[in-house]
Amino acid sequence: METKRPLICSRFHRAIELIGRRWSGAVLQALMTGRVRYCDLKAAVPEISDRMLSERLKELEGEGLVNRIVTPEMPVRVEYELTPKGVALREPLRAIGAWAEEWVEPPS
Amino acid sequence: METKRPLICSRFHRAIELIGRRWSGAVLQALMTGRVRYCDLKAAVPEISDRMLSERLKELEGEGLVNRIVTPEMPVRVEYELTPKGVALREPLRAIGAWAEEWVEPPS
Repeated sequence: METKRPLICSRFHRAIELIGRRWSGAVLQALMTGRVRYCDLKAAVPEISDRMLSERLKELEGEGLVNRIVTPEMPVRVEYELTPKGVALREPLRAIGAWAEEWVEPPS
Repeated sequence: METKRPLICSRFHRAIELIGRRWSGAVLQALMTGRVRYCDLKAAVPEISDRMLSERLKELEGEGLVNRIVTPEMPVRVEYELTPKGVALREPLRAIGAWAEEWVEPPS
């Protein structure tokens, strides 16, 4: 059988590594429910360290996927929400979830 | 506005980090066209080093996504193909590709 030379789309490549970066998928998934406070994000992904969560959020903000909203009350309220670019990830993340549901073993 | 506490599915989490690992998405994408020889995989993802490509393929084999097929001829022919679990990633990868097409800037 003759094998073909496949071509890789570099945008696809960037996208998948962006959402696949450690914890990024979990954080994005958590934000799909709407605007979330920092402490609730932390609770939604309990294994992540504060340092890592802040880093990921900064990265996602830098990529234009997440907005950071600061409300000046006492104490200051910090929330995160997806941008339209981030919301558009709903379908890819759903498809990955469906695949995981079917093919990935639940942790023992 | 009250914010909700989202829950993360650990299977989803595992799945997205598996396919998002450096080069994994690109290698899987390259295999979507069918059975591919090692050298053609290398050509499809030219920036990857031999060491990294071998490592990724071993990992994907270990996860049950890829089969390695060795044909004993001279020289030995080594090919890779997706398992049904790997083929089932077509839809998630397509969805990520569509998102990338719309939202990710092409590299300059």
